[in-house]
Amino acid sequence: MSTQMNATLSERGSTDEVENGAVLMPKFGSDGLLTAVTIDAVSSKVLMVAHMNKEALIKTIETNEAWYYSRSRSALWRKGETSGQIQKIREIQVDCDQDALVLIVDVGGDGGCCHTGRSSCFYRRIDGIDDNNRIKLSRI
Amino acid sequence: MSTQMNATLSERGSTDEVENGAVLMPKFGSDGLLTAVTIDAVSSKVLMVAHMNKEALIKTIETNEAWYYSRSRSALWRKGETSGQIQKIREIQVDCDQDALVLIVDVGGDGGCCHTGRSSCFYRRIDGIDDNNRIKLSRI
Repeated sequence: MSTQMNATLSERGSTDEVENGAVLMPKFGSDGLLTAVTIDAVSSKVLMVAHMNKEALIKTIETNEAWYYSRSRSALWRKGETSGQIQKIREIQVDCDQDALVLIVDVGGDGGCCHTGRSSCFYRRIDGIDDNNRIKLSRI
Repeated sequence: MSTQMNATLSERGSTDEVENGAVLMPKFGSDGLLTAVTIDAVSSKVLMVAHMNKEALIKTIETNEAWYYSRSRSALWRKGETSGQIQKIREIQVDCDQDALVLIVDVGGDGGCCHTGRSSCFYRRIDGIDDNNRIKLSRI
């Protein structure tokens, strides 16, 4: 992927331009965010689901490293800045209506992702229902 | 995964219960939705990113087929009901703070997913910047 600077986000076009065109014209929600799904390039596992505002998306494209917008902290967030778990971008994919991205990344530092210390944020699966009809989880 | 009926969603607990516990206590956003990322069990590719309200999540768990909530149509949505592209659930994963799910699915019908006719909604990647600083897309 090119890492040229000064990328600009195009305005939304027609449905045909959005779905079949060759220009990124992303749809940010009413909260100014779109969804990013981050995949480990080596394992192909989902590492995390996070959000980007326009600034985070531009920074990600221009620096080739994943930047997100933290909804809890209301702040731009360079993933791995303190942990060293920098996410180097291999590829950014966009979906049909351009409101979600998939980031294929190589993870720096110790290779982890989750703030709990696990390598992926997805470390549990739904595993049936208990006697009180509660939905049980087990470790993957 | 169990397909027992009458699953109920538990109230949110402490951070420790949410992150390390063995009970699903999902966090729905202010719009009543959480994010679901759907992965093809065979190819391991991301098929789509969509949203679930409480009813969609319960129906997905109880029927072992993917149900979503369509934000554009403001309606519950059984994926594949008209197209035959039913998503049979192999596994549902939940992330650390329980506001996102990964669905590992086997796709019925012709095996497709996207309303545009492509097998996945993610059929384009970001591919550099043009002379007007527009962000270019190319087919995957």
